[in-house]
Amino acid sequence: MKFLLRWFTSYSEKEKQLSEAVKRIIGVKPYNIRLYNLAMQHSSVAAENENIKGFKESNERLEYLGDAILGAIVAEYLFKKYPYKEEGFLTEVRSRIVNRESLNRLAFKIGLNNLVEFEGRKRTGQSHKSIYGDAMEAFIGAIYLDRGFHFTRRYVINNLLQQHYDIDEVVETNTNFKSLIIEWAQKNGHSVEFTMSKPGGHRVGKQFKVNLVVDGEVMATGSGYSKKKAEQDAARKTCELLDIS
Amino acid sequence: MKFLLRWFTSYSEKEKQLSEAVKRIIGVKPYNIRLYNLAMQHSSVAAENENIKGFKESNERLEYLGDAILGAIVAEYLFKKYPYKEEGFLTEVRSRIVNRESLNRLAFKIGLNNLVEFEGRKRTGQSHKSIYGDAMEAFIGAIYLDRGFHFTRRYVINNLLQQHYDIDEVVETNTNFKSLIIEWAQKNGHSVEFTMSKPGGHRVGKQFKVNLVVDGEVMATGSGYSKKKAEQDAARKTCELLDIS
Repeated sequence: MKFLLRWFTSYSEKEKQLSEAVKRIIGVKPYNIRLYNLAMQHSSVAAENENIKGFKESNERLEYLGDAILGAIVAEYLFKKYPYKEEGFLTEVRSRIVNRESLNRLAFKIGLNNLVEFEGRKRTGQSHKSIYGDAMEAFIGAIYLDRGFHFTRRYVINNLLQQHYDIDEVVETNTNFKSLIIEWAQKNGHSVEFTMSKPGGHRVGKQFKVNLVVDGEVMATGSGYSKKKAEQDAARKTCELLDIS
Repeated sequence: MKFLLRWFTSYSEKEKQLSEAVKRIIGVKPYNIRLYNLAMQHSSVAAENENIKGFKESNERLEYLGDAILGAIVAEYLFKKYPYKEEGFLTEVRSRIVNRESLNRLAFKIGLNNLVEFEGRKRTGQSHKSIYGDAMEAFIGAIYLDRGFHFTRRYVINNLLQQHYDIDEVVETNTNFKSLIIEWAQKNGHSVEFTMSKPGGHRVGKQFKVNLVVDGEVMATGSGYSKKKAEQDAARKTCELLDIS
């Protein structure tokens, strides 16, 4: 049915080109090119897409969906790859795989950066740092709606995780975010401290909660099964927030 | 193959009973009852399950998996149910559906509470508040591994979301968490304030970030597309953290 529909849908020249590009990336022609087209529309160009109901379409909804689908696929992949590792380990490794930096890099690796549309195409300002990673998630949302769960799962595992990540290295590379933050603060004249977050005086479950405070403002709260891990977690989040790397 | 395996696997009496109970809940007999058995083992009984490699099996890994699978299914469900709602709305509604309180209630509604095993079965202390919600997630992880994505998706949508949630009510019930927190603080003699989290002076994407500070300690950071929404978000997280309702 979807196949037949494609025959009767007339594609614009732009859509034909996108269709070819998507085929090069995922290996098959899209059933519904409009999903992929939407996935490549950053919100900065959404005003042009305003539809009849005044709803401005951009890739943000697809990004929300793709984020959830990717999270589930990576969760299962790690669950099966590491049968004797605890939940805390799996969560940590997953967050390293799907964090903004990783997804930005991934978008460039598969050539998605050439397809994304946004205002100020040439600008390379800080605010654009997550455009590609966001588009990466939206792209996965589009694949899911277009081709279903099993196709998406196979694509993510075989073409993304296994080709573009060295998971063992991801596990071993224990980036010391705490050092990064401290170095950054010293260089730029900021104060940094960790404070314990004590909700009602009790620990939250078995996890420690720690705040990272920069110049008196809490930047992020980290959690982990040790104080050290909670600090690393808070430091990692802060590095992401402030684009420190 | 899985079906054949079941014929050759001998079940203990306990497993047979659990198999019947699961069948009553999900409508079909499990292929692999051991997954469901594990899903019902809270970490407080894990020591008894210590295996040959010294790895203590409990439902925590399955909880991690089920959380991700449930998140993806609910994400798609809301994405399709609300085609003209923005990402922020979808994220908010999803978090209300899968938060700890909701999942605790859900576990009781489908009768999972009778199957969960934990130390101090009779105790009703605060630390046990999330046992059922956690088991609910682990149960979904077990269904996923046992029966695959499509079965799980159908079960979650048809039997959980549509039977046990009134989604329109979830959307409309805009619990005023900010009032709850302020009331709680007045009653118990705590100070409460909201502070803006200003990472490097710029807003994070289009979202506001706000910290909720109780007695000088940051409890949670909230985000949203308006300051008010960010405050509500921080207040909701704090209510969950401190079991305020």
